[in-house]
Amino acid sequence: MNTRSPTECPAWARLLAQAESTRTVHLRDLFASRKLVAEAAGVRYDFSRQRVDAMTLRLLANLAGERGFPEWREALLSGKPINSTEKRAAWHTALRAGASSPHEVRETLARMRTITTKLRAEKQFKRIVNLGTGGSDLGPRLLADALGDGALEVRFTANVDPRDLERALEGAAPDSTLFVIASKTFTTQETMSNAAAAKKWGGKAFYAVTSNVEAAKQFGANEILPMWDWVGGRFSVWSAVGFAAACAIGFDRFEEFLSGAREIDTHFAQAPLEKNVPVLMALIGVWNANFLGAATHAVLPYSNALRLLPAYLQQLEMESNGKRVDREGRPVEYATAPVLWGAEGTVSQHSFHQLLHQGTQVVPADFIDVDSDKTLTANCTAQADALAFGTDDPKLPPHKQYPGNRPSSVLSFEKVTAENLGRLIACYEHKVFTQGVIWNINSFDQWGVELGKELAKKILTKGK
Amino acid sequence: MNTRSPTECPAWARLLAQAESTRTVHLRDLFASRKLVAEAAGVRYDFSRQRVDAMTLRLLANLAGERGFPEWREALLSGKPINSTEKRAAWHTALRAGASSPHEVRETLARMRTITTKLRAEKQFKRIVNLGTGGSDLGPRLLADALGDGALEVRFTANVDPRDLERALEGAAPDSTLFVIASKTFTTQETMSNAAAAKKWGGKAFYAVTSNVEAAKQFGANEILPMWDWVGGRFSVWSAVGFAAACAIGFDRFEEFLSGAREIDTHFAQAPLEKNVPVLMALIGVWNANFLGAATHAVLPYSNALRLLPAYLQQLEMESNGKRVDREGRPVEYATAPVLWGAEGTVSQHSFHQLLHQGTQVVPADFIDVDSDKTLTANCTAQADALAFGTDDPKLPPHKQYPGNRPSSVLSFEKVTAENLGRLIACYEHKVFTQGVIWNINSFDQWGVELGKELAKKILTKGK
Repeated sequence: MNTRSPTECPAWARLLAQAESTRTVHLRDLFASRKLVAEAAGVRYDFSRQRVDAMTLRLLANLAGERGFPEWREALLSGKPINSTEKRAAWHTALRAGASSPHEVRETLARMRTITTKLRAEKQFKRIVNLGTGGSDLGPRLLADALGDGALEVRFTANVDPRDLERALEGAAPDSTLFVIASKTFTTQETMSNAAAAKKWGGKAFYAVTSNVEAAKQFGANEILPMWDWVGGRFSVWSAVGFAAACAIGFDRFEEFLSGAREIDTHFAQAPLEKNVPVLMALIGVWNANFLGAATHAVLPYSNALRLLPAYLQQLEMESNGKRVDREGRPVEYATAPVLWGAEGTVSQHSFHQLLHQGTQVVPADFIDVDSDKTLTANCTAQADALAFGTDDPKLPPHKQYPGNRPSSVLSFEKVTAENLGRLIACYEHKVFTQGVIWNINSFDQWGVELGKELAKKILTKGK
Repeated sequence: MNTRSPTECPAWARLLAQAESTRTVHLRDLFASRKLVAEAAGVRYDFSRQRVDAMTLRLLANLAGERGFPEWREALLSGKPINSTEKRAAWHTALRAGASSPHEVRETLARMRTITTKLRAEKQFKRIVNLGTGGSDLGPRLLADALGDGALEVRFTANVDPRDLERALEGAAPDSTLFVIASKTFTTQETMSNAAAAKKWGGKAFYAVTSNVEAAKQFGANEILPMWDWVGGRFSVWSAVGFAAACAIGFDRFEEFLSGAREIDTHFAQAPLEKNVPVLMALIGVWNANFLGAATHAVLPYSNALRLLPAYLQQLEMESNGKRVDREGRPVEYATAPVLWGAEGTVSQHSFHQLLHQGTQVVPADFIDVDSDKTLTANCTAQADALAFGTDDPKLPPHKQYPGNRPSSVLSFEKVTAENLGRLIACYEHKVFTQGVIWNINSFDQWGVELGKELAKKILTKGK
């Protein structure tokens, strides 16, 4: 594999020069003459309002090529151990490969179908409470919140703060509550502390999603669904980690969620770089972060159903690519993941859009636009246009002037369905991977969370 | 008032030199010899882990002085029209001044007490739904979420997306639902569209919080509580805008919320700069943003009750200080508000802390620490320590090294009570004001949100 630093790639220097030479070009002038849209399985990526021209796009694609992107993609999709510090694969695509999935995956999905269908039909349990944190929480929580149909009430507890579990148990009774304990090691502090509290509360029914079968049995779990070493937590919503979500939305929807992602996997594997949505998302992110100097990236879903998407993507992008050493262990001399943040539109308009339009720093944004609501789409388009074009009237008083030239993309699809949500998340997953390749970092480990855990343990032990 | 640009103040140049000369000093060495803590009415601000020394703090205080801070503070607290583009006061402190509040304020609070006490006792309404957005939503939502006692079920709808109101009405019946329409102008698109939908759903009881009494009457509001021109939306939680929150927590608690803020107002007015918590928060923010180059600021409440605090502060800070022209209408040549973002700890640890510890950009953080939970406090302290001190062992493999020297503060108090929440929010309000003074910007207008509204209207009209 290519171990050359991105800054040593010929395209990098040319991109620096390109950024310099196009510095004064305004989006008002760029936009007039074009429509830049790529499409993947019903997801349209409109990047017309990005500060790129044809040359920039070519150079960015060259950079990916010079970093050996096709080889890396092949390694990802075929399950090679690309998570080098942990000597593991990052084979989340195998979780949604349908008939081509490994036997254990298909078997697990079949079990999930049987169990969730029974739970939703028999209603022995009125409340499902998922106990998990990070990757064992954010994905199923997003999916259940966006698409839950009310057949079962499914809640999520992630914080070690007891108040979080209290909220999830409001109005619940021990006999009709099922707890799902999701933890790969079955030792996660938050999750195990909440599981113990759930037992103390009188909880009787516990399912486990874990790779530590022994510990789950010891705890008294009635059902144990597997987690695998070759799937990272933040890429695991497609696995049994999605169990609580499948309870909330039904297994047919859950399979549509998988099949949507599968379509994106095919697109990502096959589409030429200049039409490849996740690759374009990645390249434009690199352009904004490394060549235009953006420190953050806003995600603004114009959809109340997708209100938890920014929180989900915070983990996906920042835990994957918030890294400071490259695959060879050298400190990097360029920016890696920007801070990802955001909130649902139109709510965000009445909160922080002031800064987006008139603040001193440029915040590139992804707008998520759902075609089916005209008012939301109008607001979304208006915001993207206002950011890009601003006002061009020097006679306005200064506080009413908008400089514009602030880049954004619009990701759009017809409706918030399980399929489209699967497609959307898969696009971001492959974006993250592609950026990791360009930045020459391992997107699949998270050593940066260990020191805090150790120190907390020390403080707690000392306090006793 | 002082109209000199901050960069022309003598302290500015000295701070630039100070930043340069202390660039290589590590927090490991700074921290060893000190404990930097200021206290205001039970709220402790520990800034020992900030990259400041005694000289830096003196220069920052000088900068505030050279910008005429005492005069500006006096103008704020005495209700002068410091919101110059709209020729209005920003007199939110008058909303919580107790016996010294204006007559109309005391009268309104008395009405709120009568109405909310009755609503909570009689339970004619089982559900209260607040319809408002931005400042008419985030404050009462935070307060109700943090401290709601369950006596009444209070929900909040802010998005023009119909799904948001649907969620708020799940399980509700028209006869037992009270809608509170909060909109200063009674024309806010989101709020009025949701109010209309509520009527269509069969809603019968509507209260209004507005300054447009005529329109509220025409709509058929049963009660109308006032909003005043001299209070900005994002500073209005202390007014009748807090009505839904007062329903959720009870009026005694609401008054404690006000009295907590009042204590901070007194502290802010009287404490010397070097012991003044909101001033110190502001100065350290300026240091990090303008002299150490931080683009963002994380707020990490280690408390599930305070999970909505980051969203609240996003509006407060970014809408107030996300500005690009100064009070004289000159484009500023320095950074104003950073991007504020965050999430509740410990949940955040399993999401984006990887980037905080090992990302390529330094993110200054405010940890909010509640003393009463030992596990949360241990985690909070551990994170702050890990950020500040990192690892200091070159024999570790590169991916296990933490550079440290990443600044944070810890704001702590005994328990999440109404009083402490009032204190905390008031600290941030005065921080925002103080930074506005230093940056010479108007923190109380929001012209940056107008263009998007106009464009959306045009698109919707054209589409018809």
